Amino acid sequence: MSKLTRFTVSLDDGLLERFDEQIKKAGCPTRSKAIADLIGDALVKQEWKTGEEVAAAIIMVFDHHKRGLSTKLTHVQHNYHHLIISSQHIHLDHDNCLEVVIVRGKPEKVQELAERLKATKGVKYASLSAASTGKVL
Amino acid sequence: MSKLTRFTVSLDDGLLERFDEQIKKAGCPTRSKAIADLIGDALVKQEWKTGEEVAAAIIMVFDHHKRGLSTKLTHVQHNYHHLIISSQHIHLDHDNCLEVVIVRGKPEKVQELAERLKATKGVKYASLSAASTGKVL
Amino acid sequence: MSKLTRFTVSLDDGLLERFDEQIKKAGCPTRSKAIADLIGDALVKQEWKTGEEVAAAIIMVFDHHKRGLSTKLTHVQHNYHHLIISSQHIHLDHDNCLEVVIVRGKPEKVQELAERLKATKGVKYASLSAASTGKVL
Amino acid sequence: MSKLTRFTVSLDDGLLERFDEQIKKAGCPTRSKAIADLIGDALVKQEWKTGEEVAAAIIMVFDHHKRGLSTKLTHVQHNYHHLIISSQHIHLDHDNCLEVVIVRGKPEKVQELAERLKATKGVKYASLSAASTGKVL
Repeated sequence: MSKLTRFTVSLDDGLLERFDEQIKKAGCPTRSKAIADLIGDALVKQEWKTGEEVAAAIIMVFDHHKRGLSTKLTHVQHNYHHLIISSQHIHLDHDNCLEVVIVRGKPEKVQELAERLKATKGVKYASLSAASTGKVL
Repeated sequence: MSKLTRFTVSLDDGLLERFDEQIKKAGCPTRSKAIADLIGDALVKQEWKTGEEVAAAIIMVFDHHKRGLSTKLTHVQHNYHHLIISSQHIHLDHDNCLEVVIVRGKPEKVQELAERLKATKGVKYASLSAASTGKVL
Repeated sequence: MSKLTRFTVSLDDGLLERFDEQIKKAGCPTRSKAIADLIGDALVKQEWKTGEEVAAAIIMVFDHHKRGLSTKLTHVQHNYHHLIISSQHIHLDHDNCLEVVIVRGKPEKVQELAERLKATKGVKYASLSAASTGKVL
Repeated sequence: MSKLTRFTVSLDDGLLERFDEQIKKAGCPTRSKAIADLIGDALVKQEWKTGEEVAAAIIMVFDHHKRGLSTKLTHVQHNYHHLIISSQHIHLDHDNCLEVVIVRGKPEKVQELAERLKATKGVKYASLSAASTGKVL
């Protein structure tokens, strides 16, 4: 575990006041935590542009009645098996399923897998949620 | 399962040509699938602004060594237990964990839960990935 | 002009180190400026959700040969004339024009105007760039 | 001006129904226009990842009382003068100014200029609004 560093920030007092209000609304315990969150978001964005390895969740909605769809999705996932940590399947209703695939790898490969899954006929919705392996955080 | 409707679209030929190139690159099987994807994304965005019920994944990175953190995260999740379908925990390395919480409910409540989890001391990163219960798709 | 307030932040040392690298790359002069920027972005996002008055630019690309298009765009803009501060027109090439409309008003009205302009036949692209009247900054 | 191409799309009837509702709400005149808009947005996103030349607006908020700020902003803009088509200045109130700089060039250079302007001490807010030279549209 890493140590804490203390440093001083000079901020326009009006800006700080409004930031404090927002922190309070969001239920954030301290200014330091709120600032660390903003920095973390900025670093993760940067990591997705230039980084070596990221973590992410790909979230999909599809109709499991669609013939051959499960087989196709399994097939695509197998072609990227080295990226996939695990996946989770939720039955939303009689027709719709939600599948969340947790992945780890190079940003461009992760994006490629998300595109391939989205392009699969029968997948109604797919989106990629960027996260981090935690090394930059 | 729903039926297919056929309809005709008139599009600038240059625009169609460039769209066809992009479809090919993304490995999308047909124009109809590619157009359905764009429409689906637009409807899900709309659903998050005005809809009754959405599905989503909240993805978090944290250091499990942080004292009391697991207890706090469990506590927050219990306060929103009616929203949570399931959650999944991945050990990224010696220190970092990735947790993906799959949720379903009113958009503003889902966003509130994501904010509460993000505001918890020790959580290094949290982001909300919008999805859908599939009803608008 | 407002005064500066000084306060101390405690941050994980690894996180601070990586933030300092990013600050340096972006050519940002001080940590305080970089943190003020992150806070400003967060406050402007919030303002667009809940605020009274925002500023924005609506940027459009269209083909000025399209018959009646200029008249239609002028007509839409007149219906929202109380929002519009000014607009600027650039001839990109023989066919394409770029128009940037600077607006100020309630977030939902500004979004409505952007939608109306985008929906006008002949407008090839339109996007809304969120900014602020500066009061929250 | 380019010709129109007509082609047929097969879409899930429920999805089409909900898309028609959204089109109506946004005041869009035809399905073809609504689909062209979605395609245009997707192509412009792609152009910013891989394209040769884009157009954009950089929108900034700053306090013109800040000593030396105008000089600094002019200086930064001069270093990128080959990118800048024009800029527009609005007096928001006694303190705050809004400046919109319209630019054209390689995506990475445009992003670099936006970063440099944002990093300038005294600039309270800056954001980049992606647009297109119209060639992909």
